[in-house]
Amino acid sequence: MPEPSVPLPALERMAAYMRCLMQLERENVRTVSSQEMEALTGISAAQFRKDLSYFGEFGKRGIGYDVGQLHQRIAAVLRIQEEQPVLLVGAGNLGSALIAYPGWGDYGFRIVAVFDEDPAKIGTDLRGVRIRPLRDLPQVNRDLAARIGIIAVPADQAQAVADALIDAGVTGIINFAPVKLLHPEHVIVRDVCFICELAVLSYLIHAQEAAPDGVPAQAAD
Amino acid sequence: MPEPSVPLPALERMAAYMRCLMQLERENVRTVSSQEMEALTGISAAQFRKDLSYFGEFGKRGIGYDVGQLHQRIAAVLRIQEEQPVLLVGAGNLGSALIAYPGWGDYGFRIVAVFDEDPAKIGTDLRGVRIRPLRDLPQVNRDLAARIGIIAVPADQAQAVADALIDAGVTGIINFAPVKLLHPEHVIVRDVCFICELAVLSYLIHAQEAAPDGVPAQAAD
Repeated sequence: MPEPSVPLPALERMAAYMRCLMQLERENVRTVSSQEMEALTGISAAQFRKDLSYFGEFGKRGIGYDVGQLHQRIAAVLRIQEEQPVLLVGAGNLGSALIAYPGWGDYGFRIVAVFDEDPAKIGTDLRGVRIRPLRDLPQVNRDLAARIGIIAVPADQAQAVADALIDAGVTGIINFAPVKLLHPEHVIVRDVCFICELAVLSYLIHAQEAAPDGVPAQAAD
Repeated sequence: MPEPSVPLPALERMAAYMRCLMQLERENVRTVSSQEMEALTGISAAQFRKDLSYFGEFGKRGIGYDVGQLHQRIAAVLRIQEEQPVLLVGAGNLGSALIAYPGWGDYGFRIVAVFDEDPAKIGTDLRGVRIRPLRDLPQVNRDLAARIGIIAVPADQAQAVADALIDAGVTGIINFAPVKLLHPEHVIVRDVCFICELAVLSYLIHAQEAAPDGVPAQAAD
């Protein structure tokens, strides 16, 4: 039976909680309260408890949460307990920054293949992963069977890359290109928009200035 | 009087609507319905109307929305009608990818200064902006008066960079480093977590596979 539907913002917060829990584990913190989570994440304790409630019972009232256990539970919810191979298309500055980003392994992801169309890059290594031409994608993914792809190419190439990824069996795409991709219904595309982050920040800093006396710049949802 | 509080996910969706409206404008589309917005953004028509309702009346029932007008209204809501200067710290792969990202001007942002500690980079130009040492930040921002800063440095340098930005008058930070930053209450920090995006995607593709017969992988909030 499928799990009940969960609001997307709750999922995004779950990922943020998990990141926070991993930091606590590195600091050898064993238990954490919802109030402490609020201080660490900026997400209210009430929201935190509500988000967890979508996925069942997580903590004991008054005792707080076992950090390691909560981490494992959230990893299970997000289905990131097992290693998942990821394809990266685009070995430019963005692709290079992404593959160098620390923590892939902590979340169970591994970039197993990198593709680019630049002849000067093909055949060289990016962080130990060989860069291949995009035309090799179908054959390469027959062996790797990755279902997740990252698009880190310019906007005018993004649709062709998406089509190639989907043809090769990818069902989930992270799209960094500033363009809306067409895709079949069974494929899930998440657009990452850097500048949208700044637009939200712009709202928040202006709201903060307008109400500096402790009125929160944002409400819980 | 400050605006009423708005849920953060609604703000994030407003930025996504605006991105979509800009694409429609480029295609010379004049009006758009909430159903068409749903098809374009993947966010339900009901959610779209609810989000707009936080900020007053936007459209006329049955006629749809004037694309240009809605764009301007959302820009006003997000306070991005006027140019805002932005400081970028980190001229590595990520910083280079960010400054090359198209669309800064569309959102009223302009990267006016770039800082890095690498002596080989200092004094060179990144997309026409001179790279300066971080120690010059206070003096440079005395003239520029930017309130928004982007942190694109490794995790172990991020806190020092945040401190320097805040000392120089920055009140809003986009943090790409995978570390939780300490900051005074008047400063707003938004963490961008690439891998969190993949974790959410992982949930969605597994939910989609578990319920392939049209059950949505996510609910509205």
